[in-house]
Amino acid sequence: MKSIPLFLMGCGGVGRQLLQHIVSCRHLHAKQGMLLRVVGVCDSKSLLVATDVFTKDLNDSSLMEICRVKSSGSSLSMLNGLGESQIFTNMESTGKALEIAGHLGRTTGLAVVDCSASSETIEVLKQVVDFGCCVVLANKKPLTSSMEVFDKLVSHPRRIRHESTVGAGLPVITSLNRILASGDPIHHIIGSLSGTLGYVMSELEEGKPFSQVVKAAKSLGYTEPDPRDDLGGMDVARKGLILSRLLGWRLNLDDIKVESLYPDEMGPDKMSLKDFLANGLQLLDKNIEERVKLASSKGNTLRYVCSIEGTRCHVGVQELPKNSALGRLRGSDNVLEIYSRCYKDYPLVIQGAGAGNDTTAAGVLADIIDLQDLFS
Amino acid sequence: MKSIPLFLMGCGGVGRQLLQHIVSCRHLHAKQGMLLRVVGVCDSKSLLVATDVFTKDLNDSSLMEICRVKSSGSSLSMLNGLGESQIFTNMESTGKALEIAGHLGRTTGLAVVDCSASSETIEVLKQVVDFGCCVVLANKKPLTSSMEVFDKLVSHPRRIRHESTVGAGLPVITSLNRILASGDPIHHIIGSLSGTLGYVMSELEEGKPFSQVVKAAKSLGYTEPDPRDDLGGMDVARKGLILSRLLGWRLNLDDIKVESLYPDEMGPDKMSLKDFLANGLQLLDKNIEERVKLASSKGNTLRYVCSIEGTRCHVGVQELPKNSALGRLRGSDNVLEIYSRCYKDYPLVIQGAGAGNDTTAAGVLADIIDLQDLFS
Repeated sequence: MKSIPLFLMGCGGVGRQLLQHIVSCRHLHAKQGMLLRVVGVCDSKSLLVATDVFTKDLNDSSLMEICRVKSSGSSLSMLNGLGESQIFTNMESTGKALEIAGHLGRTTGLAVVDCSASSETIEVLKQVVDFGCCVVLANKKPLTSSMEVFDKLVSHPRRIRHESTVGAGLPVITSLNRILASGDPIHHIIGSLSGTLGYVMSELEEGKPFSQVVKAAKSLGYTEPDPRDDLGGMDVARKGLILSRLLGWRLNLDDIKVESLYPDEMGPDKMSLKDFLANGLQLLDKNIEERVKLASSKGNTLRYVCSIEGTRCHVGVQELPKNSALGRLRGSDNVLEIYSRCYKDYPLVIQGAGAGNDTTAAGVLADIIDLQDLFS
Repeated sequence: MKSIPLFLMGCGGVGRQLLQHIVSCRHLHAKQGMLLRVVGVCDSKSLLVATDVFTKDLNDSSLMEICRVKSSGSSLSMLNGLGESQIFTNMESTGKALEIAGHLGRTTGLAVVDCSASSETIEVLKQVVDFGCCVVLANKKPLTSSMEVFDKLVSHPRRIRHESTVGAGLPVITSLNRILASGDPIHHIIGSLSGTLGYVMSELEEGKPFSQVVKAAKSLGYTEPDPRDDLGGMDVARKGLILSRLLGWRLNLDDIKVESLYPDEMGPDKMSLKDFLANGLQLLDKNIEERVKLASSKGNTLRYVCSIEGTRCHVGVQELPKNSALGRLRGSDNVLEIYSRCYKDYPLVIQGAGAGNDTTAAGVLADIIDLQDLFS
C-alpha cells in the first residue's frame, strides 16, 4: 500500500470539501493501493496535527469533526483534545508546520495542499519546496505573486500541481501541460474563466439591464458578497497570469491590461456597497446596453474574456461571433479555446462548470492522486 | 538527466510522426532534464535495434532515415548497416524484441510504444508488462481484444497510457482518469468520436445526399480507402469499448450495439468497392434524407454517436438538439460530453481535432513524458 502524507492549509469551503472527498474515496483509493494520510490541517490561526506524523494521522471521524466545526464558523482551536492530535495556535503554528514538513519532506515525502485564498501561505510554500515536499494548489495567490516566488514553486515541475487554480476541476492545466510537453506550440488562448461574468454577459445578450443582471447574480449566490470583487476582473487576471506563466511568459499581474466593469469612482474605497447597489450600478446600464446592441448588429455578442496572444495577456469585454464556442456560452460554465499547431483552424475547446467547492476539491484530489509515483 | 528508453512498434504515419516529434523536441526535453532514447523500432516484418541497448540508441540521423525509408513504402530491412544498429527479420525479430524488453524492463525501465494498427502486437505487449515495462498505445486493438488481455495490460495502471486511442491527442482519457480518481461518479458519456462520420452527418444536415457526401469525404481523404470501414461504425465501437472498460464495465466488442450506415448486403464480402460507390451508395440516399428531415422537423439533427449509460454502450445514429454541443458540431472535429456528479446539469465538454498523424503522435509523446517519474 502506497502511503501519501498530506498537510492541508485552509479549511474554507474547498478545504472542507476536500476532506470529505478523501474520506468518501477511502475504499476507491485502497482498491488502487493508495492511502491518503492527513497528518495536519491548519486555518489562518491554528494548526491541528497528529501526535506522531510518521505513524499516526487524523482519522476519518476527526476529519469529519474538523468539517463540522469549521462549517459552523468556529476556529480549529475548538478541537483541542480531538483524537490523537495536538493543537498549536498563532505564533507557534507556522514553526510547527515547517518542522513537520521538514521531517516528512526529507523522508517519506509530503504533499502540502493549499486550499486557502490567502497570500500568507507563500512563505511556508517556498520553504516546503526546499524540503522536497510536493505542492498542490487551489489558491491562485502563490502563483500570481512575484516571478521569484513562481520560479521557486515550479523549480521541481513534477512536484507541483495546480489544476484548480483555473477553471476549478476542468482539465485546463493538465491539457496545457500535455500540449507543451509534446512540443506543440500554443499560439493563442482565449477563454471565459469567470462563471459570474459568463452569467452576466449571457444575460445581457438577452436584453436585460446590467444593474438587474448583477443584482440577480448576487441573489443567486453567483457573486462574491461585494459583486465588485468579480466585476473588477482581477480574479480573471490572476487566472490569465497563471496561464501566461505556464506558457513561459515572465509577466506580472500589473503587466496585464484589465478592464473593470465599473469605473474607479465607484470603487470600494469611494462608494459603499449599499450605495453601489442602490445607485451606482444603474448609472452603468445605458453604456453597456449600447455596446451590447452595437455588437449584436454585427452578429456578435459580448463576452468577458481572458486572451493570451504572443506574450500579451489582456482581460476584458470582447466582441465575439455568436456562433463561436465562446459566443454560444450560457449560464455560469467556463470555456477555454486553445489554438496551436495541432489545433490550428479549429481550437481545442474545454467547457464545463468552472466554480463550486465540489468540482474545485475534486480537481485538487485528482492532482494529489497524480503525484502518487513520487511516494512509496 | 533522466533517461527514458523507448521501443517503437509500428512505423506507419503515426509512428514516423512520433519519431519526428521526438527529434524536434530534443532541446525542449533536455531543458526539462529528460532524454528520450529510442533503442529499437519495428514494423510488421523487421526490427532495427541499437547494438547495445544499455549504452547506445538510434541517433537522430538514424531516426530521420527510418522515417524517410518507411514513408517511401520500403521495409526497415533496407536499413541494414545503419549507424550503430542491427537488423533482425521475421522469426528472429519478436524473440530479440522480448529479450531487449526483458533486460531493460527489469533494470532501467522501458516504454514500449505501439503505434501500429495491428492485433499482432498483443502477445508482445502482454509479456513486456510482466517484465515491468511501461506501455503507451495509439493502437486500439490491444485494449479491445478479450477482457483477459485488457486486465493484463492495465494490471499496473500507472505503467500504461493510451490517450491517442480515443480522439487522437484530445485530453479524453486523461480527463476521464482524473474524474475517476477524484471519486466523481460518471453517469453518462456521449460523443462524436469519428471525424469522418462527424463530417458526413453535418453535411447531411445541409441537405446534401448521403452518396454525394460520402464521395466528397473520400476525395477529401477523410475516409479509409474503402469508406465502408468508417461507415460500418466498428472504429467508433472500439473507442466506445475502451471508454466503457475504463469506467469499469466488463464488456466485449460484441456486447456493443453498433448501427452500420450500410446494409449487410452491401458489405465488402458481397459487393465490390467500385459497385458500392457507383450503385450501392445512392440506394441509401432516400432513407437517410427522410431521417434527416424528420429530425429537423423536431428541431433536432442526426449525429453518429457513441453513448455509454449505465453498463450499456451503443453506437449509431441519434437525434440530438441542434443547440447542444454535439448538435452544433461542424467539420471533422470530435466532441465528447461527460455527465457526472460535478458535471450534472451541463456536461464537461472536450472538443477539437480527433484525427491526424500530428495530433495523434503528439498525444503519444505527451503520454511518454507523463511516465517520467517511473524512470531515473
